[in-house]
Amino acid sequence: MAEAVRHDKTARQLRLLSDALDSGRLGPVRRLVNTLSPAEIGNLLESLPPGKRVIVWGLVDPEDDGEVLVHVGEEVRESLLADMDTDEIVAAVEDLDIDDLADLVEDLPDTVIDEVLKSMDRENRERLEQVLSYPEDTAGRLMNPDVVTVRADTTIDVVLRYLRLRGELPEHTDHLYVVSRRHQYLGRIALAALLTHEPGTAINKLIDDEQPAIDVGETAGEVARQFSDHDWISAPVVDDNNILLGRITIDDVVDIIREEAEHQALSAAGLDEDEDLFSPVRRAFRRRLIWLSVNLCTAFLAASVVGQFEDSIAKLVALAALMPIVAGMGGNAGTQVLALMIRGLALGQIGASNVAVLLRKELSVALINGLVLGVGLGLIVLIWFRQPGLSLVIGAALTINLLTAAAGGVLVPVTLKRLGFDPALAGGVVLTTLTDVMGFLSFLGLATLILIH
Amino acid sequence: MAEAVRHDKTARQLRLLSDALDSGRLGPVRRLVNTLSPAEIGNLLESLPPGKRVIVWGLVDPEDDGEVLVHVGEEVRESLLADMDTDEIVAAVEDLDIDDLADLVEDLPDTVIDEVLKSMDRENRERLEQVLSYPEDTAGRLMNPDVVTVRADTTIDVVLRYLRLRGELPEHTDHLYVVSRRHQYLGRIALAALLTHEPGTAINKLIDDEQPAIDVGETAGEVARQFSDHDWISAPVVDDNNILLGRITIDDVVDIIREEAEHQALSAAGLDEDEDLFSPVRRAFRRRLIWLSVNLCTAFLAASVVGQFEDSIAKLVALAALMPIVAGMGGNAGTQVLALMIRGLALGQIGASNVAVLLRKELSVALINGLVLGVGLGLIVLIWFRQPGLSLVIGAALTINLLTAAAGGVLVPVTLKRLGFDPALAGGVVLTTLTDVMGFLSFLGLATLILIH
Repeated sequence: MAEAVRHDKTARQLRLLSDALDSGRLGPVRRLVNTLSPAEIGNLLESLPPGKRVIVWGLVDPEDDGEVLVHVGEEVRESLLADMDTDEIVAAVEDLDIDDLADLVEDLPDTVIDEVLKSMDRENRERLEQVLSYPEDTAGRLMNPDVVTVRADTTIDVVLRYLRLRGELPEHTDHLYVVSRRHQYLGRIALAALLTHEPGTAINKLIDDEQPAIDVGETAGEVARQFSDHDWISAPVVDDNNILLGRITIDDVVDIIREEAEHQALSAAGLDEDEDLFSPVRRAFRRRLIWLSVNLCTAFLAASVVGQFEDSIAKLVALAALMPIVAGMGGNAGTQVLALMIRGLALGQIGASNVAVLLRKELSVALINGLVLGVGLGLIVLIWFRQPGLSLVIGAALTINLLTAAAGGVLVPVTLKRLGFDPALAGGVVLTTLTDVMGFLSFLGLATLILIH
Repeated sequence: MAEAVRHDKTARQLRLLSDALDSGRLGPVRRLVNTLSPAEIGNLLESLPPGKRVIVWGLVDPEDDGEVLVHVGEEVRESLLADMDTDEIVAAVEDLDIDDLADLVEDLPDTVIDEVLKSMDRENRERLEQVLSYPEDTAGRLMNPDVVTVRADTTIDVVLRYLRLRGELPEHTDHLYVVSRRHQYLGRIALAALLTHEPGTAINKLIDDEQPAIDVGETAGEVARQFSDHDWISAPVVDDNNILLGRITIDDVVDIIREEAEHQALSAAGLDEDEDLFSPVRRAFRRRLIWLSVNLCTAFLAASVVGQFEDSIAKLVALAALMPIVAGMGGNAGTQVLALMIRGLALGQIGASNVAVLLRKELSVALINGLVLGVGLGLIVLIWFRQPGLSLVIGAALTINLLTAAAGGVLVPVTLKRLGFDPALAGGVVLTTLTDVMGFLSFLGLATLILIH
């Protein structure tokens, strides 16, 4: 896919907006902003430096405020909330769906939460409290309790009359849920089925009970997997007694999938997916410092290996120039294996049954690559330094380090996961430490043994 | 999110299946496999080594074959197709939706394509040819021409009678599309609206013309962005004359989002998102070799910088042990900035208007980190080597390299994108080459100027 043309539209809006802001005429900015959807406004706010962000936020139609807050990352959300007083926040969030409100509520100041709860009617307050009673990142937190239910012992006719009386359906309703007298989930009826069957048809003839309901304690990741594996638009959520509690819709699942992908991409660099592109220097500095300090420790570990061979390097300075090549190539090769493993682990494709096969495959690939690249590297070194012994040593060391990289690329993420760590977060650091240490050790060690007398 | 518990279910299925396969009793394997959805079967096949994969593929209900083929990566698909004869392939794919078939067709051998086309009725063949006439990764390729249309000058009553006569609706139909006599797109009607309004209501009172139609030439990435920004379930696709051509549904969009995320994660390691976890050693070796060769060239560039300072290193061997620290820390810091930039570029949040602000922010963060870490590193080096001059040099070199990393982290991806390259693919290589070269150059250069006489 051509990255270059992909997000033209957003970039164009951003440019237009930026020009209008620079010119200081806020009328056109307001008009432009309010042609956008809340998610687009959120994206735009994220792309603005703090000063301009505050100005544009003030121009957003108050009706959209709540939805915009739902659609931005936590850090940006905080900066937007800091700019609103209690009344504005209450007005912004009171019309949100329960699931969106539950998502927001923990970022709100306590006094605001009290006001929001007071502004809700009893039914909605109870629903919100129920949703909040489930742990974050579970189906319970994602569901919306607003569902349309029908009984099995009736006909389309009756249901149609009920729906016409009821009026509007909750957003993204594609099925009605059939429940028992005790509100147990029995199955679902597609809206399409109601439209394509004769009015006299009995509801229990139309029930689709093939789609299993989602358990309220299911993790968000597992919910996302089921939605995308089964092409669902919505799914019912039940408790242990099969009592229908609510419904999860695909739009929330799309957000989970995006967040998971961002988490994977950013955590490899020690970043959080909620990081604001323009977060204040002081905050960004502190967070980066922690990550760089971890990396500094591992760098010292590698340096101390080199320190053991100072005498050899003093006798043959070429070693100093060549040693980063062996270490770096190991890091590159290992990163490739790691990337494949992290994807496989995230998709549940890797388990005890196939690790051995993967390890054998990756070691074979590394061995062949080690021999081919080792010979190539050896030849270049021969031309550069005219020492056959040095060529032999660097070729052998490269092969050893590529084998280390392959073994580490497979085993490091699997082990981290088994120990309960996130392989996407810690895998890269552990692996490159391994390939650095092994690269220096094999190259300088072999050189000392073979070349230095 | 706890990675460790996320994909329990798939991993458990995999273990069960693997045990059953090892025991050689294929009956339980067949039963287990055929309780899964096609996407789950696809995922399972991807997690099996080639030998077991062929056995399980043979046990899949032939009815699911087509859907399974749609749900696996290109490499695995090839290996599965290699195991089928023409009749089997034709039988597998002939019942697929047009958009899925279009997705598959290019991986099929020519003789098979002819057979598939022959097996289709004229209408479907023309539809397939139409979809295939649009470039890959555009809305035209993603759409399904199977849509339900109604006229504006009628009532709910009439539409209901038409739908009952028609029977089943295409999958994921949440709206009917209203078209003119010339099949121009006028707007849409929610199924929910048909159910909640009185039968006598005129259709033109229910038309929602707010959702813009998607242009058939729109890129897949832009389509995905619009779906997720507007929480759409489906959207109409039109040509330049506003003629309705088809409809894109959210399930295909979810696939695009997943693919884009995988592309970003894997291309940073020089891998393709269609790479098979168990691809044959020969193929994997060749692909990895290209990537490692590119990295070998850049490693030589860095090594040649070190080579310029051999005299200095011979005089002060400690330089050899310390130089990888400066280079490596620059790489780590740059990778953090790069990860943020790649996400921002993918979301369209970065343009000419804010690059300067980002650059200033990242340079500030790097300067503070450089000073803090530079002092820390200098102190440790002082304790280790007891040479104040060396501490001063490494602290200064670290700060210079962190500033380089910040500037490179912002400017390299922006420049690559402007030149039409994929920053996710090439950004890391270019940036670490920069930080390696600058790390060695600043550290060894300063040491030569200040310490070596």
